[in-house]
Amino acid sequence: MSSTSIEAPYLMYLGDAPDQLAAKTANGVKVWRPEKCRGQFRLPGCNADLGLPDMTMKEAADHGVRTIILGVANRGGVMPDAWVDTLVEGLELGMDIASGLHVRVSQIQRIKDCAAANGRKVLDVRHPTKEFDLGTGAKRPGKRLLTVGTDCSVGKMFTSLAIEAEMKKRGMKADFRATGQTGIFIAGDGVSVDAVIADFIAGAAEWLSPANDEDHWDLMEGQGSLLHASFAGVSMGLLHGSQPDALVLCHEVNRPHMRGLPHYPVPSLEEALEINMRCARLTNPDAKLVGVALNTQSLSDQEAEDALKDASDRLGVPAIDAVRTGAAAIVDAL
Amino acid sequence: MSSTSIEAPYLMYLGDAPDQLAAKTANGVKVWRPEKCRGQFRLPGCNADLGLPDMTMKEAADHGVRTIILGVANRGGVMPDAWVDTLVEGLELGMDIASGLHVRVSQIQRIKDCAAANGRKVLDVRHPTKEFDLGTGAKRPGKRLLTVGTDCSVGKMFTSLAIEAEMKKRGMKADFRATGQTGIFIAGDGVSVDAVIADFIAGAAEWLSPANDEDHWDLMEGQGSLLHASFAGVSMGLLHGSQPDALVLCHEVNRPHMRGLPHYPVPSLEEALEINMRCARLTNPDAKLVGVALNTQSLSDQEAEDALKDASDRLGVPAIDAVRTGAAAIVDAL
Repeated sequence: MSSTSIEAPYLMYLGDAPDQLAAKTANGVKVWRPEKCRGQFRLPGCNADLGLPDMTMKEAADHGVRTIILGVANRGGVMPDAWVDTLVEGLELGMDIASGLHVRVSQIQRIKDCAAANGRKVLDVRHPTKEFDLGTGAKRPGKRLLTVGTDCSVGKMFTSLAIEAEMKKRGMKADFRATGQTGIFIAGDGVSVDAVIADFIAGAAEWLSPANDEDHWDLMEGQGSLLHASFAGVSMGLLHGSQPDALVLCHEVNRPHMRGLPHYPVPSLEEALEINMRCARLTNPDAKLVGVALNTQSLSDQEAEDALKDASDRLGVPAIDAVRTGAAAIVDAL
Repeated sequence: MSSTSIEAPYLMYLGDAPDQLAAKTANGVKVWRPEKCRGQFRLPGCNADLGLPDMTMKEAADHGVRTIILGVANRGGVMPDAWVDTLVEGLELGMDIASGLHVRVSQIQRIKDCAAANGRKVLDVRHPTKEFDLGTGAKRPGKRLLTVGTDCSVGKMFTSLAIEAEMKKRGMKADFRATGQTGIFIAGDGVSVDAVIADFIAGAAEWLSPANDEDHWDLMEGQGSLLHASFAGVSMGLLHGSQPDALVLCHEVNRPHMRGLPHYPVPSLEEALEINMRCARLTNPDAKLVGVALNTQSLSDQEAEDALKDASDRLGVPAIDAVRTGAAAIVDAL
């Protein structure tokens, strides 16, 4: 899609990640694109494990790795010398780097110099460098599905990927479109929409899902929630720029409050649906809800089944939990 | 408010502006803060005139000017040598620079070097350098009024300033809070909210209108429209972060279509009101509409009077045209 695309295969750089949770991003890549992940790199003290072959930088290069993926939280925020040393070694061996860290790895002087000297790319996927055009709201060919949520981190990426997988299994034309760091490593491309300049959120979403075949589906990874007091601006621009024909409403059952905002309750499915449909119709008057995706990890099997039936009855569309049930019911309904 | 504040008095730098329209920003500053504008600087070929005394850089410094304001569109987008020469002269004479140009004046090498050597500030107000926190949506003391619009460029800044002026005339505690370049030169501070990183729109608006006395009003300058396909994300974050107690809905009568989007009709007052109230109540359940502000420049006096009466009858609040009627009717109603 662009000059920012990340070439596979990958070496998953885990550094000295203190636990498995610190490697959550890397783990997501391993789950959804195992064929891209050739090995993992761990330093002494690393307590994360993706179940991939451990490799030195030299071994990774010998195995054809093209890009070292930093899909791990580093301690503190300053990159340790041991990380820089090994990343420089990787660059010298001809591999690129793609980082999901907050710190701009491309601006660390030794890494910057080494990449320049060796003609390698260092991508900070949280910090888009591309300049986008303003959104136009003009209709373009192709179909688009966007996952929207009652809150952040309720399974929007997971659901979009499950729908893509189901569509591909059926031979449909479909592409997952990544809007966050984990998704970008999985897709090998995309835009961290929450990190673009505010004026260009919708424009970035339009760029990410350009004109396509009439029977092609873009599966847009949603971000945030129109009902989240911190992030609704991002969600709004993404919704307008995606111009979704189809929305899937994602929700985590039993979440106590909005993520990061203990003073805000989680809205009902109906409330989230109403505001999303209201706003979606500005740029696509034919937008419609096609499914509900619940994250039912806190429930027993029977409770989950009941919750899915209840949600489906209330909203009149299929309800899935992408982990428990897969996404077939939603793809059936399209 | 911050290290980005712009010290008055100002020298309005008009360069070789081809016509009065190119100096629209500078003109806005002159209209709303004449006491800040000590003179204007014009190069050969300049066809704009603010009616201020023409001054050389030396004369401006001798008259106590603290900041040179670039509130003018430059031809092309590259800054001419004659501009750089004179701006460098101004820095050497001890004046700061505040620019509303798209080009980053602070990054032009000769200007950057000269500012560093002389300990001067060069502010690019379109490009915020401050890092904001995420919005929290937490309630804070003080009152806030936000101007919202059916579209961009319908008079939101003008209306906010007119309300501030009326409040100050009555001895009320009030501060205009600027969210765009012209407003920032007028207020001497503020944030170009459309230029912050998308994640932080609401956070920037919260920072801009911090906790204050219970009887103090922040008059927040609105941006864009929740119904504009390009900019609604900015408007949404600004609305949530402002937590307005009071909204004033701004609209230009007879606008043929949404600004920059010939394929989008302008929404009705009722439609714009509904979506704004719906979204405002997320972070302030007590938000209410307190007035309508029409831009009636295309109408005769009688037509304008009729249009204001009609809008007031339809929405049940006072309707003003800040240019024709002033803002007293809205302040009366608060």
